[in-house]
Amino acid sequence: MSASPMLDKRLIVSLPALTPAPCTLTGITGLRAAGVSAGIKASGKPDLALLVADEPRSAGGIFTQNKFAAAPVQVCREHLAKSKGLVRAIVVNSGNANACTGQQGWKDAREMSRRVAERVGCPLEQVLVASTGVIGVKLPMDKVRAGIEQAFTQLSGEMEAGRRFLSAIQTTDAFPKEACAQVRLGKSKVAVAGVCKGAGMIHPNLATMLAFVATEAAFTPAELRRLLPQVAAQSFNAVHVDTHPSTNDTFLVLAAGKKAGRGQGAGSGKKVVEAIGNVARRLAWLIARDGEGATKVTTIEVSGARSDRAAQAIAALVASSALVRTALYGNDPNWGRFVSQVGNSPAVQSVQGLVCTLQGITVFKNGEPTRFDRSAAGRAMKNEDVRLTLRLREGRGQAFLMTSDLGYKYVEINAEYTT
Amino acid sequence: MSASPMLDKRLIVSLPALTPAPCTLTGITGLRAAGVSAGIKASGKPDLALLVADEPRSAGGIFTQNKFAAAPVQVCREHLAKSKGLVRAIVVNSGNANACTGQQGWKDAREMSRRVAERVGCPLEQVLVASTGVIGVKLPMDKVRAGIEQAFTQLSGEMEAGRRFLSAIQTTDAFPKEACAQVRLGKSKVAVAGVCKGAGMIHPNLATMLAFVATEAAFTPAELRRLLPQVAAQSFNAVHVDTHPSTNDTFLVLAAGKKAGRGQGAGSGKKVVEAIGNVARRLAWLIARDGEGATKVTTIEVSGARSDRAAQAIAALVASSALVRTALYGNDPNWGRFVSQVGNSPAVQSVQGLVCTLQGITVFKNGEPTRFDRSAAGRAMKNEDVRLTLRLREGRGQAFLMTSDLGYKYVEINAEYTT
Repeated sequence: MSASPMLDKRLIVSLPALTPAPCTLTGITGLRAAGVSAGIKASGKPDLALLVADEPRSAGGIFTQNKFAAAPVQVCREHLAKSKGLVRAIVVNSGNANACTGQQGWKDAREMSRRVAERVGCPLEQVLVASTGVIGVKLPMDKVRAGIEQAFTQLSGEMEAGRRFLSAIQTTDAFPKEACAQVRLGKSKVAVAGVCKGAGMIHPNLATMLAFVATEAAFTPAELRRLLPQVAAQSFNAVHVDTHPSTNDTFLVLAAGKKAGRGQGAGSGKKVVEAIGNVARRLAWLIARDGEGATKVTTIEVSGARSDRAAQAIAALVASSALVRTALYGNDPNWGRFVSQVGNSPAVQSVQGLVCTLQGITVFKNGEPTRFDRSAAGRAMKNEDVRLTLRLREGRGQAFLMTSDLGYKYVEINAEYTT
Repeated sequence: MSASPMLDKRLIVSLPALTPAPCTLTGITGLRAAGVSAGIKASGKPDLALLVADEPRSAGGIFTQNKFAAAPVQVCREHLAKSKGLVRAIVVNSGNANACTGQQGWKDAREMSRRVAERVGCPLEQVLVASTGVIGVKLPMDKVRAGIEQAFTQLSGEMEAGRRFLSAIQTTDAFPKEACAQVRLGKSKVAVAGVCKGAGMIHPNLATMLAFVATEAAFTPAELRRLLPQVAAQSFNAVHVDTHPSTNDTFLVLAAGKKAGRGQGAGSGKKVVEAIGNVARRLAWLIARDGEGATKVTTIEVSGARSDRAAQAIAALVASSALVRTALYGNDPNWGRFVSQVGNSPAVQSVQGLVCTLQGITVFKNGEPTRFDRSAAGRAMKNEDVRLTLRLREGRGQAFLMTSDLGYKYVEINAEYTT
C-alpha cells in the first residue's frame, strides 16, 4: 500500500465531535488500566497512568522527530528495539515532560519502567514510558514512585479504569479524546480502541501529543512496524495545530488479542487495519478540534500534485500560514490567501488550472476568482468541519491535512499566560 | 562574496524607529517624482506614483517567487531582460494589485508602461511597473490613464514630490518607510535613498512589499544583477512577517548618477554597496516593525550551523512558529519554544551544545535551561528591538532574520475585517 493519504470523507464528516466513545482501552480483552493522582500536577488532578497487558503483546511506536526528543522517548525506542516489539505495560505521567532534563531525565525514565517491570514481573524492555507537561524540570521521583505503587493497587479491566487512564494522561485538554471501532471477522468481533491527549503547546507546558491505540486483533511486531507509518501519515502526522512538533510526541499501537488479524480469511487483516486507521484519524481530528482556541477543524485536501509527497508539502505550507488560519477563524472565504500560498510552494511547478473550493463552493479557477456568493461561502465556513480543496493539474499526487484555526484565544493562551 | 547574512548590529540597534529620513528618492540627483490621487483607492488617498530619471539608468530587480506572480511583475521581468537593465521610469499604483487578473491584467500592466514611455519618449522596455492592493479585480484603467497624465504634470525633483511618491505607493502601512545614507568618495558625496511599503497582507488587500532604492553612484546593470541577491538576502528576504509571500513583491534598485561607484579608488564601490545594503536593511526592519499589530521586531540570529543556508532554514523555522511569535508578543522568555523549534529543523543534525540567548541573557545551554532571572528577561523583551540568538556547534554557517510578533491585533486585522 503506497499510503496515499486522501481523506476518508465519511469519517471526518459523520462522527459527532465531542461525545464519549462507547469504549476505551479497557474495552480491549486482556488489558487493565489505572489512573491516579500522584501529585506531579500542582492541581492535584490525575497524573499517573498505567496500562498492563495479561501477557507480552506486539507493539509499535512512532515518535517525535525533534532532536530534543525527551528521555521517555529515547527509552521507548531503546526498549522496543531490545524487546523486538513485545510490550507488557505502558506507564505515563502528565504534569512533567521529562524533556531537556539531561542525564538525570534519562535515569528517571528508566527507573519508571524498571519499577513497573518489577511489579509486573517482566523484562525491563517490555515496559514503555511516556511523559507530558512542563519541560526543563526534573521529575519529582518520590511522587512518581508512590504513584506507580498506587496505580498497581487500582489496576482494573473496567470501563471506569480506562477512563481514569485517559484523564491521567491529559494536561490542558479541554475535553477527553477517545475513539473506537469494531470489525466483524467471520463470526467474531474484533475491537479497536484509542485514547489521546492534545498537541497544543500551552505555556508553561510544552505539551505533547500522546496517543495509545489497542486492538484485539493479532499482529506480529513486524506487521505493526510496517503498518504504523501509514496510519500515522493519515492521522497524527496529518494534523497541524501550530507547526511546532513537541519533544515528547508518541503514538503507540498494541495488538493485545489472540483473535487473528491476518490469516482469518481474505480482507480481514485489511479491515482491521482500516479500523485502526479510522480510530487514529478520529483521535487526530479531536486533537485539531482542541487546538488552542480553535473553533473548527479545517481539512485541507490537495490533489493533482506531482506526487503524494508534493501534495503533503503544499497542504502543510497552506496550513502553516497564519494568514490562512486567521481567515478560517474569521469565516472569510479569502481565496487569495489560499491560492497564493499554493503559489509559494516549491513543490508546485505550475499553478495553471488550479481550482480552489471551500465547502464545495468553487471560489477560484482559470487563474481568477469565480463570481461566488461571498456571504454564502462565509456562512458555509461557520462549521465545525470545514473542507478546503486545492486541485492542481500536475500529476496524481494527493494528500490531506487537518488544521485548527487561529483566533484571539490562541494569542491569549500563548502570549498572556506567562511565567 | 558569499553573502553571509550576519547581522550588522549597529544598524538594527542604533537607528531610531519611526522618524523620517533626511532624504527620499528625489534627494538623488537626476530623479523626479510624483504621487497623485487617481481614484483607484475608494478612500481618495494618493494611489498613483511616478519616478522618472533624466536619462536611462542601470537598474536591477528582485521579484516574488510566487507562481501567481502578478502581471506587473511579469512585465518588469520582460522589460529588464529586453532593455538589458536600462530604466528610464517606474510607474506604480496602489489600491489594486493587478494580480489574478488573467490576460487582461497583463495588457493593463503593459499599457501603463506604454503610456509612460510615450510621455517620456523612451522605448517601452525602459519603463517598469508595479502594483499593490486588492487582488482578483481588474484595474480601473480609465482612472489609471488619467492618473498617469496628472502625475506627469506634477513631476518634480523637490523633496515634497518624493514624499508624494512614497504616500502613493502605500496601502495599509501605519507609517511611511524611508531610509537613506551618504558615502564620501574622495572629495564628493554619493547618496543612497530608499522607500518602501509594508509586506503585511491585510484583507481585502493581499498587500505587497514594494521597495525602491536609488543611488547617485554609477553601476553597470551587470554589477547590479550580481549585487542585488546579496542585498536582498540581508534585508527584504530576511523579513518574516507572516511567512506568506505575496504575488507582487518587488525590489528595484536604480543607479541614477554619473558619479562613479566602482573605479573611484579602492573600497569606494564596496562602501556604496554597504550603504545600499544598510538602506535596504533599514527598510526591511521598518516593514517588520509595521507587521500587522506588531509591537516589536525580533532579530533571530543563528550561528554555528552547518552552512549559511542551514542557518537560514533554522532561523526561518523559528520565525514561522506561531508559538514563538506569541511568546515574543507576550514578553515571555519561553526558551522551550525557541530551542525545541531548532530541534525540529531538518537543517540541524545535533542540538548538542546549543546555546540560546535572549537580549544577551543566556537562557539555555548544556541541554537544559539556565537558572536565569525570568522577570528580568521578560522586562528585557519589552523593547522595540529584541535579539534572540541560537548558537549551534555544527559548523560556521550563520544567518539572521527579522520577524514581527503575533498578538491580538494581528488576529483582529486578519480575521475580523472580512468581506
